[in-house]
Amino acid sequence: MHFEHAGIATEDARELADLYTDLFGIENVHEEEFDGMRIIFLDCGNSYFELLEPLEDGTIAQYLEQNGPGIHHLALRTDDIEGALETAREHDVRLIDEEPRPGAWGHTVAFLHPSDTGGILLELVEH
Amino acid sequence: MHFEHAGIATEDARELADLYTDLFGIENVHEEEFDGMRIIFLDCGNSYFELLEPLEDGTIAQYLEQNGPGIHHLALRTDDIEGALETAREHDVRLIDEEPRPGAWGHTVAFLHPSDTGGILLELVEH
Repeated sequence: MHFEHAGIATEDARELADLYTDLFGIENVHEEEFDGMRIIFLDCGNSYFELLEPLEDGTIAQYLEQNGPGIHHLALRTDDIEGALETAREHDVRLIDEEPRPGAWGHTVAFLHPSDTGGILLELVEH
Repeated sequence: MHFEHAGIATEDARELADLYTDLFGIENVHEEEFDGMRIIFLDCGNSYFELLEPLEDGTIAQYLEQNGPGIHHLALRTDDIEGALETAREHDVRLIDEEPRPGAWGHTVAFLHPSDTGGILLELVEH
């Protein structure tokens, strides 16, 4: 697997995107509204920062209320998301998504629960 | 800049490394004791997971006490860390390290304060 992106919860994705472009030269290469969020992907050359701004109540809005803005999850890219979920099952890792589902940017995704992955919310992504 | 690594705080770096190797096929390519920590780099192909286990009291031990295990920081690689720090200063970003300092794996590093970077502890790394 390869690193795909770091998911970042923010109250204002466009403002944060502008700041990161200024500071680091990483640019907005994709923006969409998906699942009640404004999502911006910043191109880090070899991977992305995925900025997640809630437009309605939901997981990210609740995360921001409880934790404030910050790193929400890490995502790894796989060519076989079904196989990766099966491997996780074999290691008794709790799955948030028992089956792959549609994610941002038209990708297929599934999340593993942080309780069994060292406290990290890990997303599997298949393009 | 390019994405360099995600820093992960853990009570047991070797155990977490083994789990991630089993789950994701990402392997330990560098291990060292540095600055009171056991540090393991897992190769994600295009970047790394940096597992940080405290061997004595310090930043990561305190982080674990307050937050439990999880994502501690994100690191971006630059060829000009001095210039990157100057850009951050120009944007009134609070610097944890006013000057670059030696980091893990022989690299040169400097941290930006999360209060001015959208809640993300960001590390600049120059090889």
